[in-house]
Amino acid sequence: MLAAIEAGGTKFVCAVGDETGKIIDKVTIPTTVPSETMKEVIAFFKQYQITAMGVGSFGPIDIDQDSPSYGSITSTPKTAWKDYPIVQELKKEFPIPIGFNTDVNAAALGEATFGAAKGLDSCLYITVGTGVGAGAVMQGHLLQGLSHPEMGHILIRKHPEDSFEGVCPYHKDCLEGLAAGPAIEKRWGQKGSELTHKEEVWELEGYYLAQAMMQYLLILSPKKIILGGGVSHQEAVFKAIRKHLPEINGGYIALPDLENYIVSPGLGDQAGITGALMLAYKALNEQIA
Amino acid sequence: MLAAIEAGGTKFVCAVGDETGKIIDKVTIPTTVPSETMKEVIAFFKQYQITAMGVGSFGPIDIDQDSPSYGSITSTPKTAWKDYPIVQELKKEFPIPIGFNTDVNAAALGEATFGAAKGLDSCLYITVGTGVGAGAVMQGHLLQGLSHPEMGHILIRKHPEDSFEGVCPYHKDCLEGLAAGPAIEKRWGQKGSELTHKEEVWELEGYYLAQAMMQYLLILSPKKIILGGGVSHQEAVFKAIRKHLPEINGGYIALPDLENYIVSPGLGDQAGITGALMLAYKALNEQIA
Ligand SMILES: Nc1ncnc2c1ncn2[C@@H]1O[C@H](COP(=O)(O)OP(=O)(O)O)[C@@H](O)[C@H]1O
Ligand SMILES: Nc1ncnc2c1ncn2[C@@H]1O[C@H](COP(=O)(O)OP(=O)(O)O)[C@@H](O)[C@H]1O
Ligand SMILES: [Zn+2]
Ligand SMILES: [Zn+2]
Repeated sequence: MLAAIEAGGTKFVCAVGDETGKIIDKVTIPTTVPSETMKEVIAFFKQYQITAMGVGSFGPIDIDQDSPSYGSITSTPKTAWKDYPIVQELKKEFPIPIGFNTDVNAAALGEATFGAAKGLDSCLYITVGTGVGAGAVMQGHLLQGLSHPEMGHILIRKHPEDSFEGVCPYHKDCLEGLAAGPAIEKRWGQKGSELTHKEEVWELEGYYLAQAMMQYLLILSPKKIILGGGVSHQEAVFKAIRKHLPEINGGYIALPDLENYIVSPGLGDQAGITGALMLAYKALNEQIA
Repeated sequence: MLAAIEAGGTKFVCAVGDETGKIIDKVTIPTTVPSETMKEVIAFFKQYQITAMGVGSFGPIDIDQDSPSYGSITSTPKTAWKDYPIVQELKKEFPIPIGFNTDVNAAALGEATFGAAKGLDSCLYITVGTGVGAGAVMQGHLLQGLSHPEMGHILIRKHPEDSFEGVCPYHKDCLEGLAAGPAIEKRWGQKGSELTHKEEVWELEGYYLAQAMMQYLLILSPKKIILGGGVSHQEAVFKAIRKHLPEINGGYIALPDLENYIVSPGLGDQAGITGALMLAYKALNEQIA
């Protein structure tokens, strides 16, 4: 049996399942402090005979296998988890192969394997919720270089009529600072979920997300872009993105059919945990190979 | 013997060499019309016993092996070369494995194999000359998805004091529109090579290139960034980039040591042709495998 953890800032989703993506049992544990949360995580998995584990984690995290802090959550603002060596701690209890990557990379892998990008060798998964994060599978591999990408903080151009200064603590008006859920709430004075009928909210949101997607397209050229997270529940955002993207492109690259290119997650909220299961499966195979 | 072509908008560089990157003979042929240019190209290679060929071409080009127009230069403004099936034409004369990619991807491959990124599994090569183009090797492979990246036309933010509107025919003020050689010449009224002592020119250039590099870093996280092309001959540009990049980053990601991270091509102007030789070598191995 394979074990999967989707380690988020508010909750840990733990599941056991198999390499077909089937989930056999699942539990949700609140993210408090490592001593508490991890105790419950470990207790859950101890019920099963597991052969490998996959962890998709909030970040930033250290995924460089040559680094002494490999397997840690690094500079997170959640102080209790800062520099927490999650993989090493899990290894103590479960001396099995453990795959480790970001939550958004796990979701990208899940979608590429069983979701909206099934059968394609590349896709980009972007989530717009409390923050903005994105991960990519390119040529069949989770994209990784010096570190994992941090695509949520790219620079975009502010709309001339948007006077909101942005909420990113590092950049103020980067993509996350202008377009994540908290930015929407602060700009319009109401939560996104209560703004459904306010057209201009999603029009502006689409304007910013289309800019971001244009950069991803030009730099990566993924075969599918999957938009998830709380904000993606607003159908109007997709419409606005599909309207603005060709304007921003200005006829430069041949754009694919955007209805089929920018889509919702095929796995719904299960993209992350399913991807973590695939991280486990990959870790198992790499160990054997 | 391996054959290599660096197909540029003004000249074709043709070489024969081996898989160690050694070039045995080389010739430069002006880019006029296909019937003329290709006749000389073919005549050069007919002198040798070649087993595989690599072509790094100006673009955009079709590198999708499942596409009917695979191996063509597609929508170039150089009308004589528009839709020219360069790989098919070469195959008629040389029925051998032919690797085909963009000129900048070839340069990235050359640098990753024998140049400034030797020993690393990823790098980004960016050239700033008549245009801006970039290619990347990620996890040992030339980055490719729906198509090859078109990283030269990403959006950047205009400097508040820069009133120049930009020269990109598609976007006006994209990266290429603001920062390529022709933009420099038009903004300042003199060719870049004559502006060496004008500090503000390279300060602004560095401001724009640092923005671009920040996006590449956030989205790809390459292990090295190599800056080539005519404009990179200005040492002041490197200094300005290294100054602006940390400002733009705002303490967000851990930046590598920029002196060793953003560098000149290790192969000088030979990056492209050496990379094309490696494209030939890859094509040969893929054929045999
Ligand atoms: N239906 C909705 N429409 C617009 N915004 C939403 C919606 N649901 C949640 N959000 C916003 O998304 C953010 C939460 O994102 P979510 O993806 O649900 O969780 P998280 O990012 O914390 O994992 C909040 O800022 C919330 O206001
Ligand atoms: N030393 C230099 N300093 C600044 N700009 C230069 C220099 N040399 C060439 N350029 C500019 O770079 C452009 C030519 O780029 P180059 O890389 O040499 O060729 P291409 O891009 O056509 O292959 C021109 O716009 C030229 O003005
Ligand atoms: Zn930011
Ligand atoms: Zn442009």
